[in-house]
Amino acid sequence: MAIDPDTLLAMPPIVTRQRLTRRDTILYALGIGATELDFLFEERLKALPTMAVTLGYPGFFWRDPALGANWQKILHGEQSTILHAPLPVEGEIIGSTMIEALYDKGAGKGALAMVTREIHDRAGTHLATSRSMTFLRGDGGFGGSSEGAPVPHPLPDRAPDAVVTLATAANQAQIYRLSGDLNPLHIDPEVAAGAGFDGPILHGLATYGAIGRALLAARCAGDPARLKRIDGRFSAPVYPGETIETSIWDEEGGKLAFRARVVERDRIVFTNGYAETA
Amino acid sequence: MAIDPDTLLAMPPIVTRQRLTRRDTILYALGIGATELDFLFEERLKALPTMAVTLGYPGFFWRDPALGANWQKILHGEQSTILHAPLPVEGEIIGSTMIEALYDKGAGKGALAMVTREIHDRAGTHLATSRSMTFLRGDGGFGGSSEGAPVPHPLPDRAPDAVVTLATAANQAQIYRLSGDLNPLHIDPEVAAGAGFDGPILHGLATYGAIGRALLAARCAGDPARLKRIDGRFSAPVYPGETIETSIWDEEGGKLAFRARVVERDRIVFTNGYAETA
Repeated sequence: MAIDPDTLLAMPPIVTRQRLTRRDTILYALGIGATELDFLFEERLKALPTMAVTLGYPGFFWRDPALGANWQKILHGEQSTILHAPLPVEGEIIGSTMIEALYDKGAGKGALAMVTREIHDRAGTHLATSRSMTFLRGDGGFGGSSEGAPVPHPLPDRAPDAVVTLATAANQAQIYRLSGDLNPLHIDPEVAAGAGFDGPILHGLATYGAIGRALLAARCAGDPARLKRIDGRFSAPVYPGETIETSIWDEEGGKLAFRARVVERDRIVFTNGYAETA
Repeated sequence: MAIDPDTLLAMPPIVTRQRLTRRDTILYALGIGATELDFLFEERLKALPTMAVTLGYPGFFWRDPALGANWQKILHGEQSTILHAPLPVEGEIIGSTMIEALYDKGAGKGALAMVTREIHDRAGTHLATSRSMTFLRGDGGFGGSSEGAPVPHPLPDRAPDAVVTLATAANQAQIYRLSGDLNPLHIDPEVAAGAGFDGPILHGLATYGAIGRALLAARCAGDPARLKRIDGRFSAPVYPGETIETSIWDEEGGKLAFRARVVERDRIVFTNGYAETA
């Protein structure tokens, strides 16, 4: 069984309706370790921009045999989130997910799927666009091209303009998974060992959320409406309890380059970061 | 306005229906700082016995003007929870709450209300009985008697047989409140200052849950089905981030006496504890 690009690209959009509550919005914030009351107290609640990655999310659809993917070998490679409007703290959310593009890195290397989700509220307001570059390690060589794949944002070759250090809690993944990604890799030591890890790893998107908090604090005065876009590439997992240090470089017009490392293991965990702020 | 004992005791039961989910059960466990996967991982989930205090809970009903209580002066004085069956991790729960008894400590001292909630599942299984001794500090002298009020369980005058130390997280109250008690006292520094505290305090019932974890670990081999009853008296608040040390004395037949203190301030926070185990 192998993937058929025509089938994947012609797949009808997966429409996902979600009733978001203030409790969900607070739980997301706790899941990425937020400590600011604006993100935790329902009476003055704001939504964190990175919460978009959980909104209208269809779940891990690659397991559908009709898609023909070697789903066990799939990794979340890159994430891009564009905010078109401040996210609501409650209400009905509609996600529409499709495979926007496929790139072939070759039989030995794998395929890349650009999975795009448009997120709207019930009134039709376009809230956000989430693009995940999904790395199908077992599905390269389907006869496609790798041309046109997104180019990683280059990082400047100089000292960063800001560095933000944020702790993660030992139970960070246990909290984050209540926002919807119940993959046992993030809680079950046996599953984690089977996947070659020393223990359950933090969700990549929880790391992504923590980095979003760093950008918000360092360059948006904590105002979620000012963070417009957050892109980048997952390069290594974080273990819950580790410290994430985000290095930020200012570019023109409120644009930022960034990357993050785990302090304890001096390991880059997220790189080629690109953000837009207002 | 003052309380009228006949009105309060004749109040019809408040029936509260709740749809409990595995996510709720996990969130309760996270709210009391549980770290054992049995209480956090939906694939092998067990409910913590102290979760009963959140089940079928009608909310803070004393604000109803028909009851005539000085609700601003009310404190949760004591809690007793009797488990009749292991709690489910999901399903429909029905709570039936009534004021079982009233005691008059005198005009200067206050009144005590015994608020009893019987908790059943949809099939009619009697799961638990929760009794809260509610201290109405502004409602003493209503013409009643203090006779028959529950007598605090005496603590032995010897060294404890077991001591269990459990950390609480800085965001413990922020997590616990998602189990239903949204009193801003536990998150808003201004409200906490107005009530005379140095900062938001942990929910008494979150402290109670942490003590339940200590009893479970020290005397029930972690098996929630073996903890049958947990009673005691709140004597001082805990601040999130503090360490709770529970001292346990063995009595005959699997019965326990216990109390808890905050290590950092050497303050007894829960006393006259009484538990039954199997």
